[in-house]
Amino acid sequence: MDFSKPVILGLPRKGDSFKETICRLVRFLLGKGCTVYVERRIARVYHLTDVIPVDAENAGTVADLAIVVGGDGSMIGASRNLARTGTPVIGVNRGHLGFLTDLRPDSCEQDLQEVLSGGYVTEKRPLTDVSVSEDGIVLETRQFLNEAVIHPKQIAHMIEFEVFIDSRFMNSMKADGLIVSSPTGSTAYALSAGGPILTPDISAYCLIPMFPHTLSNRPIVISDSREVTVDFLGDEGSRVTIDGQQSINVSPHQKISVRKSSYELTLIHLKGHSYYDILREKLGWGSKLF
Amino acid sequence: MDFSKPVILGLPRKGDSFKETICRLVRFLLGKGCTVYVERRIARVYHLTDVIPVDAENAGTVADLAIVVGGDGSMIGASRNLARTGTPVIGVNRGHLGFLTDLRPDSCEQDLQEVLSGGYVTEKRPLTDVSVSEDGIVLETRQFLNEAVIHPKQIAHMIEFEVFIDSRFMNSMKADGLIVSSPTGSTAYALSAGGPILTPDISAYCLIPMFPHTLSNRPIVISDSREVTVDFLGDEGSRVTIDGQQSINVSPHQKISVRKSSYELTLIHLKGHSYYDILREKLGWGSKLF
Amino acid sequence: MDFSKPVILGLPRKGDSFKETICRLVRFLLGKGCTVYVERRIARVYHLTDVIPVDAENAGTVADLAIVVGGDGSMIGASRNLARTGTPVIGVNRGHLGFLTDLRPDSCEQDLQEVLSGGYVTEKRPLTDVSVSEDGIVLETRQFLNEAVIHPKQIAHMIEFEVFIDSRFMNSMKADGLIVSSPTGSTAYALSAGGPILTPDISAYCLIPMFPHTLSNRPIVISDSREVTVDFLGDEGSRVTIDGQQSINVSPHQKISVRKSSYELTLIHLKGHSYYDILREKLGWGSKLF
Amino acid sequence: MDFSKPVILGLPRKGDSFKETICRLVRFLLGKGCTVYVERRIARVYHLTDVIPVDAENAGTVADLAIVVGGDGSMIGASRNLARTGTPVIGVNRGHLGFLTDLRPDSCEQDLQEVLSGGYVTEKRPLTDVSVSEDGIVLETRQFLNEAVIHPKQIAHMIEFEVFIDSRFMNSMKADGLIVSSPTGSTAYALSAGGPILTPDISAYCLIPMFPHTLSNRPIVISDSREVTVDFLGDEGSRVTIDGQQSINVSPHQKISVRKSSYELTLIHLKGHSYYDILREKLGWGSKLF
Repeated sequence: MDFSKPVILGLPRKGDSFKETICRLVRFLLGKGCTVYVERRIARVYHLTDVIPVDAENAGTVADLAIVVGGDGSMIGASRNLARTGTPVIGVNRGHLGFLTDLRPDSCEQDLQEVLSGGYVTEKRPLTDVSVSEDGIVLETRQFLNEAVIHPKQIAHMIEFEVFIDSRFMNSMKADGLIVSSPTGSTAYALSAGGPILTPDISAYCLIPMFPHTLSNRPIVISDSREVTVDFLGDEGSRVTIDGQQSINVSPHQKISVRKSSYELTLIHLKGHSYYDILREKLGWGSKLF
Repeated sequence: MDFSKPVILGLPRKGDSFKETICRLVRFLLGKGCTVYVERRIARVYHLTDVIPVDAENAGTVADLAIVVGGDGSMIGASRNLARTGTPVIGVNRGHLGFLTDLRPDSCEQDLQEVLSGGYVTEKRPLTDVSVSEDGIVLETRQFLNEAVIHPKQIAHMIEFEVFIDSRFMNSMKADGLIVSSPTGSTAYALSAGGPILTPDISAYCLIPMFPHTLSNRPIVISDSREVTVDFLGDEGSRVTIDGQQSINVSPHQKISVRKSSYELTLIHLKGHSYYDILREKLGWGSKLF
Repeated sequence: MDFSKPVILGLPRKGDSFKETICRLVRFLLGKGCTVYVERRIARVYHLTDVIPVDAENAGTVADLAIVVGGDGSMIGASRNLARTGTPVIGVNRGHLGFLTDLRPDSCEQDLQEVLSGGYVTEKRPLTDVSVSEDGIVLETRQFLNEAVIHPKQIAHMIEFEVFIDSRFMNSMKADGLIVSSPTGSTAYALSAGGPILTPDISAYCLIPMFPHTLSNRPIVISDSREVTVDFLGDEGSRVTIDGQQSINVSPHQKISVRKSSYELTLIHLKGHSYYDILREKLGWGSKLF
Repeated sequence: MDFSKPVILGLPRKGDSFKETICRLVRFLLGKGCTVYVERRIARVYHLTDVIPVDAENAGTVADLAIVVGGDGSMIGASRNLARTGTPVIGVNRGHLGFLTDLRPDSCEQDLQEVLSGGYVTEKRPLTDVSVSEDGIVLETRQFLNEAVIHPKQIAHMIEFEVFIDSRFMNSMKADGLIVSSPTGSTAYALSAGGPILTPDISAYCLIPMFPHTLSNRPIVISDSREVTVDFLGDEGSRVTIDGQQSINVSPHQKISVRKSSYELTLIHLKGHSYYDILREKLGWGSKLF
């Protein structure tokens, strides 16, 4: 791939280090002769010149490479738009490694130089569609990269629901909620909830009951070629939270379906990138207990 | 498939019910005009006539259908041989449902009638090769259906080892051992050890550290297209237990590799069979805690 | 103790069985010459005569024995009032055993006869005070029997807080919330959340982080002679839910304290009552997995 | 307490740092006019003069303070002897903090100076008796500080056993074993096995089933005023491992009992010592997952 029209995305933060990284990136990319797009808020806040301001929503349509500066949360936010256009994306973290943001700000010019010269590998991370439907009619569909969390509308309540896999009844549960996580999400919220780690090349979801009343309701890994449908008992309504960033309200007589999306995120890593290295560093796998 | 040469396998048990099931099966199959093979021990203990005694090891080569009477343990024992010849197998349980033995003894004639008339579905369950090697030379290879458990040679000791995935370093662990489980094994020992449930169509292993010193060493699901290698630190030696039935001693300077086998088990189920129904019944998913 | 002024408490339910149990109890107690109080709603709904209607709040002040008909939830609701007056309480379940409601409706006359003749044992279950304070001034105090759950005001958010034990800093956490459970609560919500079982004679709380970001934030058992204080970081506010039945809103600059209450519930059991028998039955400890 | 006859205990290690710590301690204590005892092996290996060599077993009878240099394992080994004589003990770690060895080698003179001047607090840690008996006759009793692990005689087997609390039946289990842990042991092996943390002032044991077949067999916390008895089903025999350091073989018809010991370890800490500080450091409670 030839990257001549990169876009820089991210959420402006207090402190100098974010600004510094942005400025270094802009300078480097302009120096390489690129047409540089920058997310409008960033361009305005830091008074950047010689760049073209762009709204995050349109970044994927104008640019041929997205550079997200921030944590995994920023990356996830950007990914839903970038996956629609298939724009490859690279993550520069703000000082400590992220699962998705694996370039360090210190060496960002050098690392980008390597990417621009073709020294990179791409990795696809599928998005997942979550739909709310009523009487067989889909009312709303959104995509997640990490996970959808299905919970009651009110805090400190529980929900009762039935789970179907490709229309086949799996089980009913009484729980605080249900997490449907992708492999990408398996090292985020799902891990806190007791789920297993799924390496990114596993084509599956993990369903993790949240505080289920039945102790044998354990995490279950299901092929992502299947559709998961959640049907609610009771008349209290529920809510789906997508990647911890968006929510959809679900009325009692509506269903939630989860199915592989046609969109996928294209991640760019430096050659030699290892998922296991990130796991070890993020999870402190070197450190011994006793 | 046409089944005219079935073989009946199982471990003779005290009590009349096992014998009764065997006799009913023999009578039914002879009545259908089949050539009926029976595992030698069973034929001898119950003085069966009109059947051909056969050693379990050879059952797959002479028969076109294996009927295993017993629990999941009997099924697993038989599977390692039957997978080599690709002989399809059906399990008749001894009164309570197994994950692999889903025909009930009460209705065995009726159910078999259905199978013989084509009213069945087949399901493939891959076996996995576990090899012990030294200096790059494979010394011994065996197959598991459920899991390989890697543990220290002596009880109440721990082992230190490094795990590689396709020769890439994943991590080192101090633990009581490591379970490498298939989806089929995920509802057996691996579940007791805190592993997730993997539905049978997931092409993966789950690696489950046993009582790891590092609390963040959590179960990890890896594609079964990859090879897992375990390399030991220390000089105490270890042991691999296969499906809880066989063991291999491993010297300190030897490695263990786990890789998809070319063999796979062909299970036969009645039409309408549902994995989720079995899960619900076996795990008591109906019962609520409070 | 001499029980001549019992009160019957419970939540009227659809169906005949609740009504039947109530009527049998009233008839039996009147026959024994007791002055029988009945919770006002029950007396009205079932048109009970010869009994004295009473509000649940006042039941403990007029009666010398409370008989709660229902599940553990009804028992917990009644307990907060009954603990204030020290009125002993006995639970009659609605068909299936509860941890607190261990008399079966079928044998309720016979069982009560035994209680009235002194064939019982008492067991104390301490209540716990939860207070919300600001600048050292306590604004509100409530009691729980089972647990207090501290969570964010909004669903699908997380909270950051610091935990102090007797004013000594224990740790800070990022989590979906924190459960502070008594031994009585350890077999309820806390168990779903991964907490251990604490037998009722343990004088302790269990603190259970809910989906903590740090995997080593495990359940911790603290002496109930100590005070637990939770101090919030961030400015979003939180909420405490008490026994799943009541809630208190907590402003960002307020603290939550948990401390042994001076109140305790006096449970009455038949002689021969065993906590372990209930555990076994409720948790299905007889049933084997494989 | 007046400490004029200290003993230095520990396991000689390769490398200079252990030797250096020993020599600094000896020099410091001799300088303070103490009669200094040193474990015989250490005195010999390092050719120490002006000290009185003593066997570890007798250290408690001659000395009025034990200084253990090493990790928690060394401390535990020493504790079984020191608890018999009630000799207070202080732990100097070998570079990284232990739960029991909280003095750092760098500052050992200064810290000991503080202890000798009375700037210390004492903490009692009870030992627990594990007995093996047959037909009501106790055959052997040993003490543990951390935990007793009951497991099968052979690796990769499981055991079936019944647990009684004060002779009252609690439940039967099929498992790889059972851990009976003290609060002191709750941050060691028991934590790896999924047990809760029990602060040292909790008078309890935690029983933790190891890989139980029944998923609802969860850790249970029992008062240490009670006796736990384990009775085996089957005829394979078992083994008890004490603090990971000693083992007792148990024949099929023998029982294991666990009961509070009359011995207790007296730990000495610097003033200002906080159990929570150690927890935070050892468990990495600062580090966040995402």
